[in-house]
Amino acid sequence: MGKTMDEQERHKRKAQKQKEKVDANVARAQIEKGVMIVVTGNGKGKSTSGFGTVARCVGHGYKAAVVQFIKGKWDCGERSLLEQHDVPFAVMGTGFTWNTQDRAGDIAAAESVWEQAKKFLADPQYHLVLLDELTYMLGYDYLDKQEVLDAIKNRPENQSVVVTGRGAVRELRELADTVSEVKEEKHAFKAGIKARKGVDW
Amino acid sequence: MGKTMDEQERHKRKAQKQKEKVDANVARAQIEKGVMIVVTGNGKGKSTSGFGTVARCVGHGYKAAVVQFIKGKWDCGERSLLEQHDVPFAVMGTGFTWNTQDRAGDIAAAESVWEQAKKFLADPQYHLVLLDELTYMLGYDYLDKQEVLDAIKNRPENQSVVVTGRGAVRELRELADTVSEVKEEKHAFKAGIKARKGVDW
Repeated sequence: MGKTMDEQERHKRKAQKQKEKVDANVARAQIEKGVMIVVTGNGKGKSTSGFGTVARCVGHGYKAAVVQFIKGKWDCGERSLLEQHDVPFAVMGTGFTWNTQDRAGDIAAAESVWEQAKKFLADPQYHLVLLDELTYMLGYDYLDKQEVLDAIKNRPENQSVVVTGRGAVRELRELADTVSEVKEEKHAFKAGIKARKGVDW
Repeated sequence: MGKTMDEQERHKRKAQKQKEKVDANVARAQIEKGVMIVVTGNGKGKSTSGFGTVARCVGHGYKAAVVQFIKGKWDCGERSLLEQHDVPFAVMGTGFTWNTQDRAGDIAAAESVWEQAKKFLADPQYHLVLLDELTYMLGYDYLDKQEVLDAIKNRPENQSVVVTGRGAVRELRELADTVSEVKEEKHAFKAGIKARKGVDW
């Protein structure tokens, strides 16, 4: 009994300290503005994180828009769901670039979907714009880097942007308020497990 | 012109090689079963990744269930959205544990929501079960580790599970098919930017 009380007391003191730390951070964080978030790295969960943020946004009654670079041709569950909630999707229709093997065609497709992205990034009615897999467009030089950076930088003050994809270039990371690097520790696919409908796509 | 053609040719060869690699991996991955995914680490995007996967699942017309450890008291946008699509939520009502400073109360709350989690994990009608922030329950010894591992291990064969939260214990990582470690490279909060409705919660 005495031991249990000690344990309770220890837990209470530790939790109290943690609470003070969190409260101090919350008190310090007072700037209110839209944020830019980059979710990059080679691990699973980047696009789903972007789409989870869109779901969160729409769940609060805000408007969100999605631009999908690369994954456009897939039958994605998240798209079916979010289109029911009036989330507009601009989709690059060519699929994975290594399937097309046509650089000129890819560039034309990238530029075309980027035109739509620019409209979302200039429109204050959107609380959130997801630029899914944008990183590859800069990594492959499919889009003009400075133009992309400027469009993100000059977006409406209250608009947030989420950029996903492997290998985000340095300038995207510098511009971002939040950068998460998702590292692959293990992947089912490499153990021979087939990509699963409703989980992987 | 010649240079441009060379560039096209180089791109085509590179893309062809990449395609062969991807195709070979796809051909190898033939096991069809539900997977267990752990999204851990100190960076932003773990819970949103879990909820994005739920949105994807529901978008395909499958059933999914959510168990929220810790974040229960928040007014979450993702919950409002997903409940509209008949996703049941089991929520631990105590909020962040450092706010309560009551270990015995936290344990009781954890055990109560775990009872609901076990029901989802035994029910083959659920294609996906999200155990959001479960990692802390094992890290703090709020739940019996072996019981949790067994329930996940013995779930229906076609059911997938996503576990999120910092500091996933070794046994969770070992049991998982896919493990992603989300590293914080930068966080808006630490630069004084307030957590944003529709983005951070």
